[in-house]
Amino acid sequence: MSTPSLEFWFEFASSYSYLSVMRIGPLARDAGVNVVWRPFLLGPVFLALGWNDSPFNIYPPKGRYMWRDLARLAARYNLPFRMPSRFPRNGLLAARVALLGDRQAWTGDFNRAVMGANFAEDRDIGDPAVIRDILSHLDLPADSLLASAAAPDNKLALRRQTEKATELGLFGAPSFITPDGELFWGNDRLEDALAWARRPQTT
Amino acid sequence: MSTPSLEFWFEFASSYSYLSVMRIGPLARDAGVNVVWRPFLLGPVFLALGWNDSPFNIYPPKGRYMWRDLARLAARYNLPFRMPSRFPRNGLLAARVALLGDRQAWTGDFNRAVMGANFAEDRDIGDPAVIRDILSHLDLPADSLLASAAAPDNKLALRRQTEKATELGLFGAPSFITPDGELFWGNDRLEDALAWARRPQTT
Repeated sequence: MSTPSLEFWFEFASSYSYLSVMRIGPLARDAGVNVVWRPFLLGPVFLALGWNDSPFNIYPPKGRYMWRDLARLAARYNLPFRMPSRFPRNGLLAARVALLGDRQAWTGDFNRAVMGANFAEDRDIGDPAVIRDILSHLDLPADSLLASAAAPDNKLALRRQTEKATELGLFGAPSFITPDGELFWGNDRLEDALAWARRPQTT
Repeated sequence: MSTPSLEFWFEFASSYSYLSVMRIGPLARDAGVNVVWRPFLLGPVFLALGWNDSPFNIYPPKGRYMWRDLARLAARYNLPFRMPSRFPRNGLLAARVALLGDRQAWTGDFNRAVMGANFAEDRDIGDPAVIRDILSHLDLPADSLLASAAAPDNKLALRRQTEKATELGLFGAPSFITPDGELFWGNDRLEDALAWARRPQTT
């Protein structure tokens, strides 16, 4: 039997994506599931739903609750957390770089570093200098990666990936899609999604 | 030490409230926590957020996901589930009756029976005949309870309870509030809320 895979759709600006990006590595390893990182942009997905901002900003009671819930969950998972001074931050450049990391050894480390910068260190991940700094700290060729990230074919690839998210019925992040097309939404469903991905496939 | 309490805010029309109403009894008993049932109406709460319908109807991708998620969760909890032919149903009369059951021995049974009618038997809980039938099956005095439910003071009490929900920062159901004012939202947080309610109070 081949190793099952789980598509992990996430957005660097998304607070609950932070929790799943930080958690998925060891959980997937223990479950024997291969993580397929799918960075995308929530902005266009939300626009299609009629939201021109994060619903956590549009609906203040939801936003107040989310930050409290996030702090509680980070404490439980033993993850560092500092409320970002700006939310949501612009995850475009980080997503373009992450897309270059598709199936590369460094992608998990990069994704975790960007998420930590946003939600534990309150750094502006929309600032190219911050992304450059993260790449350098990972001993990655920052200049060439930033150039590749900004190349037209990579910009188009991220746009297509984001359109795909809407086509797949995604409406938020994190989201998980199993090999048989089962959709799970939210950090709360990460364990369920991994368990589902391990189910025997009837093909 | 006195028995800790947990306020359980729910709406009979709410799909995820169904799961928590059916689950909370044994979980609270095992945790040594007293459940304070708080029926309320989501309609006015949603209106205050700018929604004139369930968000699961307003945002079709969220709705499609919710029904699938609900079916998966019901299967896991071993709860019967049949997708209601109409959603959301009108929970007003049921909530008025449930309010009469405040701290009465029959309230849990009534709440579970109404939820089962809506989400497992596809019956119209907005129909007074259905509520009457449920009360009769529980050997409760249906006529006098329905009369009390429709009395002006009880109508006012439900209106006040619903206003209180908004004041408490609620934006959905089910929601749970611990003795120290901690808010938990969603069936996914039922166990967390019970655990929090058991924490030693620093008063």
